[in-house]
Amino acid sequence: VHRSDVSLASMELGPYAHFMQKEIHEQPRALTDTVEALIDDGAFSTQLFGQDAEEVLSQVDSVLILAAGTSYYAGLTAKYWLESIAKLPTNVEIASEYRYRQSVPNPRQLIVTISQSGETLDTMEALKHAKSLGQHLTLAICNVQESAIPRASRLVFYTRAGAEIGVASTKAFTTQLMGLFMLAATIAKLRGQLGSEQEQEYLDSVRLLPGSVQYALNLEPQIREWANAFAPRYHALFLGRGIHYPIALEGALKLKEISYIHAEAYPAGELKHGPLALVDQYMPVVVIAPNDSLLEKVKSNMQEVRARGGELFVFADADSNFTGSDGVHVIRTPRHVGVLSPILHTIPVQMLAYHVALLKGTDVDKPRNLAKSVTVE
Amino acid sequence: VHRSDVSLASMELGPYAHFMQKEIHEQPRALTDTVEALIDDGAFSTQLFGQDAEEVLSQVDSVLILAAGTSYYAGLTAKYWLESIAKLPTNVEIASEYRYRQSVPNPRQLIVTISQSGETLDTMEALKHAKSLGQHLTLAICNVQESAIPRASRLVFYTRAGAEIGVASTKAFTTQLMGLFMLAATIAKLRGQLGSEQEQEYLDSVRLLPGSVQYALNLEPQIREWANAFAPRYHALFLGRGIHYPIALEGALKLKEISYIHAEAYPAGELKHGPLALVDQYMPVVVIAPNDSLLEKVKSNMQEVRARGGELFVFADADSNFTGSDGVHVIRTPRHVGVLSPILHTIPVQMLAYHVALLKGTDVDKPRNLAKSVTVE
Repeated sequence: VHRSDVSLASMELGPYAHFMQKEIHEQPRALTDTVEALIDDGAFSTQLFGQDAEEVLSQVDSVLILAAGTSYYAGLTAKYWLESIAKLPTNVEIASEYRYRQSVPNPRQLIVTISQSGETLDTMEALKHAKSLGQHLTLAICNVQESAIPRASRLVFYTRAGAEIGVASTKAFTTQLMGLFMLAATIAKLRGQLGSEQEQEYLDSVRLLPGSVQYALNLEPQIREWANAFAPRYHALFLGRGIHYPIALEGALKLKEISYIHAEAYPAGELKHGPLALVDQYMPVVVIAPNDSLLEKVKSNMQEVRARGGELFVFADADSNFTGSDGVHVIRTPRHVGVLSPILHTIPVQMLAYHVALLKGTDVDKPRNLAKSVTVE
Repeated sequence: VHRSDVSLASMELGPYAHFMQKEIHEQPRALTDTVEALIDDGAFSTQLFGQDAEEVLSQVDSVLILAAGTSYYAGLTAKYWLESIAKLPTNVEIASEYRYRQSVPNPRQLIVTISQSGETLDTMEALKHAKSLGQHLTLAICNVQESAIPRASRLVFYTRAGAEIGVASTKAFTTQLMGLFMLAATIAKLRGQLGSEQEQEYLDSVRLLPGSVQYALNLEPQIREWANAFAPRYHALFLGRGIHYPIALEGALKLKEISYIHAEAYPAGELKHGPLALVDQYMPVVVIAPNDSLLEKVKSNMQEVRARGGELFVFADADSNFTGSDGVHVIRTPRHVGVLSPILHTIPVQMLAYHVALLKGTDVDKPRNLAKSVTVE
């Protein structure tokens, strides 16, 4: 019996219009699978990262994360976790930059590479470069078993996102974040920085996250409504602060990749140092502000934005005091998930990009000019 | 005798239409003044950074640079110098981000703040935050004598750019870069990483730079011609690699600030990880490629850009083999200036932003929504 690719694809798509939509909705499952071993153990154990993990991780005095594209943003998020939870100085560098510059090697630094496919050329070459400098404490976070990068690394953490077909990464990203959080908590414990009460709290957060992600997915009708305001635009600005700044970057990248809208992200504090000059009624501004402190900081800027007719689209926490007003739209994410908040807040920006692309009629799963796995320079 | 502000301003402007143009053209002088003490000494001496400098700098095991806006891009450039010349691990962080997150303090890390006015609120608060964490090895790079940030720092390097009136920073940026280069070379020497031959070579580069900058200024007629291709556009992409990536960021910021064109910079290697989807005939692409290696890397991407009608504007070295072709425009910077190349390549991107703004008729010296010195959050 011969089945065409199209019918196979349709079967795999199930009730979804695109693989990207399907993969966005698979995230509760993907996250549950990724944390399965942790939940079974009931503890952040070095075993999660392989047999050698205790020996390797106990030597580490700092971390260098090497990645590209969306995986690089996962790395930027991890810096906050690694520094605040594990108290390890952490750098994050674009793989294609690191491999071509003179850096200062540190043999006690853990080299963490992140790549969905495990075959990203620049990331693989960056890993080889690090090893050539004597950096042999290496850990790969990948989604494809036995791919090149894990095979070249001492430690491996496999995300269990399942096959990702859409070129714009969704479930690979959120499961990478989960793996990186588990790494931070595990190193913290190894270094005596994680009390048992705190460990239990983190385990509870991890256990509850897939449910919270499901809640966030239920925001789809509201997000679809917002998409109408973006589809006619050529620009968008995404603002975040601290651990949510990388999520603003990821939201802007998703919109770029599949809707071809020129979206750019800024840490909110940088707005007055330049990009505010750009803002007018043609540039909607997305604010990822799970707590009120960011909103307080940008409120004065936002008055200027509003005075020029700019519209604001704010993702706030359920316990935020921030309310919508003329030209200021607010969607509340349903529950506060503490330190895992960046994972939760990824969901609405993915859905926003998806629905804007639908309205624009672009090829969502295969955006022009892009390849799924970048195995060339 | 009462003179109006207008006539005073005109007198000060001399033959220039705007302060920004005047300040761009003052850069050979500003750089000469900034390096005067170095050239007089004929050596990279710790004295350049104050009486305490030898004591402070000899304790340093790494560097953390804190700044905002254009000054942050100066810091990103300095990371390359500090790591490759002084072999000091260096981090660069946006001041408004650093002050609000949990970092891992290191009392042997040199905290370098960069601020033209010396009064930038977020940078001042970041400095206070660092000191509250026990980081007391501090150095300020500022243009305004006895301003708040230098007064709160142990070491100071004053750029001698003179008063900068245009909101978009020009001569303050290039003189900051010069101060940071001098810092890298000085620490390298203190750490025994700078041989006397290399020191002489650097001194020669510094001595020759103002002349090379004057040569670059003479490119103005060609740049003015290029501006015609940008003025009708709403988007632009700036690509750089390595030490020239921060200059791509600065070029994009200048265009944003004064011409209100949504320009964004990417390290060239990241193009395939997302932004390439955006590129079409409406988005000119600027490439800062003083040597051919970057061009080799982006050539395959560029074929895709060209296939979609995108135009390329390339700044190449005099000794580059890269030549223009249909839709690929090349301006050659006149001389190779080695390690100071980022300073030289700043000049054409400043002039490009200025001439695009002129064509668009914006208020060049006072762009909408922006203040010269950001003393609020």
